[in-house]
Amino acid sequence: MRLLLINPNTSAGVTQKLDAVARVAAASGTELVSVTAPRGVPYIATRADAVIGAIVALEMLSARDGSFDAAIIGAFGDPGLGGARELFSVPVIGLAEAGMLSACMLGRNFSIVTFSGALVPWYEECVKWHGLHERCSSVRALNEGFATIEGVQNEKEQRLIDLANRTADEDGADVIVLGGAPLSGFADVICDRVAVPLVDCVVAAVKQSEALIALKTRSPKAGTYRQPGAKSSIGLDPFLCRMLAGIRE
Amino acid sequence: MRLLLINPNTSAGVTQKLDAVARVAAASGTELVSVTAPRGVPYIATRADAVIGAIVALEMLSARDGSFDAAIIGAFGDPGLGGARELFSVPVIGLAEAGMLSACMLGRNFSIVTFSGALVPWYEECVKWHGLHERCSSVRALNEGFATIEGVQNEKEQRLIDLANRTADEDGADVIVLGGAPLSGFADVICDRVAVPLVDCVVAAVKQSEALIALKTRSPKAGTYRQPGAKSSIGLDPFLCRMLAGIRE
Amino acid sequence: MRLLLINPNTSAGVTQKLDAVARVAAASGTELVSVTAPRGVPYIATRADAVIGAIVALEMLSARDGSFDAAIIGAFGDPGLGGARELFSVPVIGLAEAGMLSACMLGRNFSIVTFSGALVPWYEECVKWHGLHERCSSVRALNEGFATIEGVQNEKEQRLIDLANRTADEDGADVIVLGGAPLSGFADVICDRVAVPLVDCVVAAVKQSEALIALKTRSPKAGTYRQPGAKSSIGLDPFLCRMLAGIRE
Amino acid sequence: MRLLLINPNTSAGVTQKLDAVARVAAASGTELVSVTAPRGVPYIATRADAVIGAIVALEMLSARDGSFDAAIIGAFGDPGLGGARELFSVPVIGLAEAGMLSACMLGRNFSIVTFSGALVPWYEECVKWHGLHERCSSVRALNEGFATIEGVQNEKEQRLIDLANRTADEDGADVIVLGGAPLSGFADVICDRVAVPLVDCVVAAVKQSEALIALKTRSPKAGTYRQPGAKSSIGLDPFLCRMLAGIRE
Amino acid sequence: MRLLLINPNTSAGVTQKLDAVARVAAASGTELVSVTAPRGVPYIATRADAVIGAIVALEMLSARDGSFDAAIIGAFGDPGLGGARELFSVPVIGLAEAGMLSACMLGRNFSIVTFSGALVPWYEECVKWHGLHERCSSVRALNEGFATIEGVQNEKEQRLIDLANRTADEDGADVIVLGGAPLSGFADVICDRVAVPLVDCVVAAVKQSEALIALKTRSPKAGTYRQPGAKSSIGLDPFLCRMLAGIRE
Amino acid sequence: MRLLLINPNTSAGVTQKLDAVARVAAASGTELVSVTAPRGVPYIATRADAVIGAIVALEMLSARDGSFDAAIIGAFGDPGLGGARELFSVPVIGLAEAGMLSACMLGRNFSIVTFSGALVPWYEECVKWHGLHERCSSVRALNEGFATIEGVQNEKEQRLIDLANRTADEDGADVIVLGGAPLSGFADVICDRVAVPLVDCVVAAVKQSEALIALKTRSPKAGTYRQPGAKSSIGLDPFLCRMLAGIRE
Repeated sequence: MRLLLINPNTSAGVTQKLDAVARVAAASGTELVSVTAPRGVPYIATRADAVIGAIVALEMLSARDGSFDAAIIGAFGDPGLGGARELFSVPVIGLAEAGMLSACMLGRNFSIVTFSGALVPWYEECVKWHGLHERCSSVRALNEGFATIEGVQNEKEQRLIDLANRTADEDGADVIVLGGAPLSGFADVICDRVAVPLVDCVVAAVKQSEALIALKTRSPKAGTYRQPGAKSSIGLDPFLCRMLAGIRE
Repeated sequence: MRLLLINPNTSAGVTQKLDAVARVAAASGTELVSVTAPRGVPYIATRADAVIGAIVALEMLSARDGSFDAAIIGAFGDPGLGGARELFSVPVIGLAEAGMLSACMLGRNFSIVTFSGALVPWYEECVKWHGLHERCSSVRALNEGFATIEGVQNEKEQRLIDLANRTADEDGADVIVLGGAPLSGFADVICDRVAVPLVDCVVAAVKQSEALIALKTRSPKAGTYRQPGAKSSIGLDPFLCRMLAGIRE
Repeated sequence: MRLLLINPNTSAGVTQKLDAVARVAAASGTELVSVTAPRGVPYIATRADAVIGAIVALEMLSARDGSFDAAIIGAFGDPGLGGARELFSVPVIGLAEAGMLSACMLGRNFSIVTFSGALVPWYEECVKWHGLHERCSSVRALNEGFATIEGVQNEKEQRLIDLANRTADEDGADVIVLGGAPLSGFADVICDRVAVPLVDCVVAAVKQSEALIALKTRSPKAGTYRQPGAKSSIGLDPFLCRMLAGIRE
Repeated sequence: MRLLLINPNTSAGVTQKLDAVARVAAASGTELVSVTAPRGVPYIATRADAVIGAIVALEMLSARDGSFDAAIIGAFGDPGLGGARELFSVPVIGLAEAGMLSACMLGRNFSIVTFSGALVPWYEECVKWHGLHERCSSVRALNEGFATIEGVQNEKEQRLIDLANRTADEDGADVIVLGGAPLSGFADVICDRVAVPLVDCVVAAVKQSEALIALKTRSPKAGTYRQPGAKSSIGLDPFLCRMLAGIRE
Repeated sequence: MRLLLINPNTSAGVTQKLDAVARVAAASGTELVSVTAPRGVPYIATRADAVIGAIVALEMLSARDGSFDAAIIGAFGDPGLGGARELFSVPVIGLAEAGMLSACMLGRNFSIVTFSGALVPWYEECVKWHGLHERCSSVRALNEGFATIEGVQNEKEQRLIDLANRTADEDGADVIVLGGAPLSGFADVICDRVAVPLVDCVVAAVKQSEALIALKTRSPKAGTYRQPGAKSSIGLDPFLCRMLAGIRE
Repeated sequence: MRLLLINPNTSAGVTQKLDAVARVAAASGTELVSVTAPRGVPYIATRADAVIGAIVALEMLSARDGSFDAAIIGAFGDPGLGGARELFSVPVIGLAEAGMLSACMLGRNFSIVTFSGALVPWYEECVKWHGLHERCSSVRALNEGFATIEGVQNEKEQRLIDLANRTADEDGADVIVLGGAPLSGFADVICDRVAVPLVDCVVAAVKQSEALIALKTRSPKAGTYRQPGAKSSIGLDPFLCRMLAGIRE
């Protein structure tokens, strides 16, 4: 199985984190390729950023069409996920989606804990888009600055542990999803200091990719994710343009 | 009042339709500027198209920052609306949003009627994003091809009238929102042949823009639509890059 | 355009406030007539009061049938709105409805802030009746007495500013709807001291009336707001009796 | 126990039906008084009618304050119920409410079946007001005229049986609530010809009144149904005016 | 009327409490039989306990098939209620259900107050199963140990009064349902010291049983509660085995 | 990884089907043990059956406590799942849950298709219990008898294909979950003849088990699934009794 992990942000350090965690989680025989966005923002925080992340995600996937059996959109919030599912016939999985669906098997209610309040509105919209708000107790974040996106999990380790425990206690969360690609691998570090199970979204995404591959589903010939008709375009990324035009590898 | 109407699609013919209808609806003293997307797809139908429409909408607005008092995103489905509200301090209104909110004052339940089944999944997601699904009876579309996007309302006139009446009857819609920029001006043509009130989204969007201007609201200093902190970016449209960097006219 | 603004309460001072704000908001060419309830209660606070306000609203509108192109029910909570829409073929808009729908374009979530806790239960029912609870973060009120209904906005100015800011902060409201006719014009006074945009419901209602007029909708011949069949009655207000009997100007 | 059954409609024939059925259902020792509205409409069908029914219900109850231990508002749709609960310290029960809550113990989902399509919008709003829409499969009605309100159950007997069976089959209703005071006693007539249990709302309302009396609850000193403060009024029914003024028997 | 009250827990002391309260509430002519579970747990707190309570409830009812006109499952949370309704043609009522439905007539929102935090998750699932979460403000419990299940209401009297008042105040509950069979009869003891009405679930269940009997409904021949086809089984309680096999008294 | 698959029904033929499909799906290194219920019913169809399946599931798991790293409850509807999660510190996954969560990554909306109408009410309750009703378009079943539970997929092959295609078309399902352990392996047989992707719940459950193991979560020390305190019991299965008593391997 060839698994493509795209980081729709431009931070190569975050890609390295994602790749390292994914590599450990992947079953033997999985060929993992991780790539960093060639354009965009260092990390996606807001709805505006998510618009950018979405187009970049589609471009990155288009450029690699035919070279992967499943793909992970490596940004919590899952930018471009719906569009990617229309354009590509292989499974595409979002980091947030994989984390939340996995969390549903570990508790009645999950909460999302992340490192920056700027992420909360978009994350909340993501929960609703997935129709999982009934299972989500809260989205909680630290309300303070941080030095670097790559180092945020070390810098805020105790603060995030405290927030996770407070969230479990105050919001009735049975399980906590650590939100945001920069927190990849962090669950493993802090799990003994948080009272409820923690979900690492990258691990979840890798295993959910394997699950979808194992289901051996056919591409939809009906339904809202069937491949749309060919469409012309102007001034778009050439790979995306090809995908829209219905040209497939 | 300077009102900017952006068509995030590349079809100039649709922009002309939008502009003509908007011009009639606008209060005296409104200075209307309508522009067509310089890049993108001829019309937005799918979720993938909407990703493109969203980035194009942000680029078009960014290129004109400071030149308008309010803006309309002239595509039903409101691509990029959330992001636009973060980046711009003046009101930005979506076509779908304006049409649906106006419909809420004309009936208990509205339905959306449009000309192509390809639009339905995205429109349904749009209704949910706006939190208006409790008021929406259905999203209905013709399931057949059409010749040109500019001419679709003429070509399908009777078919759309029949669908609108059937939707009112079968789905319990008190009012019908005509969905899709290519149907601009169509409500006026068919209103005497449909049993329930019809909403023309362009008219609605112009009047809602005026309503927001009249409210003289201050830019938010808190809440999820307050302007985000400045952010660097790579390889993006220069105007959008400036907006993200916090440089304002 | 002839716009009728009825105050279903007996406080003429509140009518004057409503009228003054509405007059400024109205487009040139709008002929505004504001009237005070000839019977009822000084201000509507409870569900029982709302029953009275509803019948008084229908009576006031019936007495003026044929003399207006659109009407505003000038009490937050929108007493009698559904019934009015059945009986009258021109647009009828509620103060709460106009404020809430306008707020939807200014933020993800709105809260309603008002001056008396007695109003909260009815306001909450109003939000649900409109199907807008998913967009409404909270309904908040001062829990204390006040001297006069006409002077309450002056008397409680700082207390309401504080409550509005606290509501934005604690309840995640992106925008605040100032609830209650006695707060007409208050948004303009305090807007620079509240961190999120404020909606003045009277301004909103005037502009929404203009929006509905601009849509030039036909009266429904189907749906739940089509005019009901003629009905006899006993002992009711003669104008309302005429309306029920299907006699129209 | 003194039980007051008010018919907020002016049809004495319907009151007789209600009274006859209630009398059989009442426990020994219950003193039942049934009264017909002195003013209003012959039967409540629309939202506008419901406004009238609500004020008439409050007037009828006010005129008899102190003479009853519990009261039933004998019109499906429960006009004035919320207001009545504020003003009166004894239990007040609605016909629709009693029928629906009882139905919840007889099936997963109930449907409401009634004799006139004009009633459906108001009934649907009633279901939502009570927060019971998750349990309600549908509100269904005959779409045809009828000769007299008192005779409608005889005239439409077979048509209503057919509709009830069709509703159970097509809408997945486990139990059917017969909606509308004119259908009092009808469940007993047709129950052997309908495939699912039927709820007679008058029987339900009498037994629910007894249930509330048996609970011996104290009047609320807090919460949204505590008695509101005394309020002046102008031009209202003298008994209602007294109640609003806080004067109690 | 022969009314069977089963306590699916093994605590005879709780059965005595239930029986004593039920006996007072029952109408004259009601023959009440109360029985204690012959196997199971002393009291049901968790979801695992509820699985046990459910099978025990079905066994206890099966052993007495034909000997009762209605039955009450005397444990808050209503273990086995859905299954019992399928197997038995007479009304079966749950303690939680009866309490919550009765509470709906006493306030807009109810809260459930109980003595042990261990009960909360199951109670919350019970509220959702009944589709009554829109009416339920909260489920609240003391977070502390207690000496004996039979004596808990005396031991915690003041603590529960304080919690009930705090719940009314903080959660906006108009009425409080006292949750848990061990709190039978407690409402009567504390009602003058709590600001909102209290519901005793046993009283409610007895009166709701009488209400269902008064409705004289026929057994469903359609719908999800019609009696299932005969089914073989292995190793089950002999009475339950007979019921599943379709053998009825 | 030692994976326990329990079939809470007494049909060994169904266990064989489950085992065969699970064995293919399992990663290398997984040690799979499949067991058939020693008591209960041949297959779980109704809510009453589900009560039996739930207790049998807890008994089967208790008897094997300490011998598995994860367990699958091999009946669609997930009997006893909540209770099992409380009692066992290793992951326990339900067949329905695994199928539905996997389906969420393959489409906007899923439908459940099964072979017997008797299953529908319980399946619908299962969807709601998991809080996934917003993602579920419908639960559909054949309405006809079948010869044997083991042979039902062969017997009804074409009928189920037709139903699946009709469900996709009429209910807007993007993906179909084949419901019921007897349909194990059936997706693979019919996938080329159904227009939308199909989910085989056993495959899904095996892969979800592996996903949860990969997450290496700690047992909850807080939240609603933390292990309950030790509890005495009477007359229960000795292994379950031990689990309740807090005795662990």
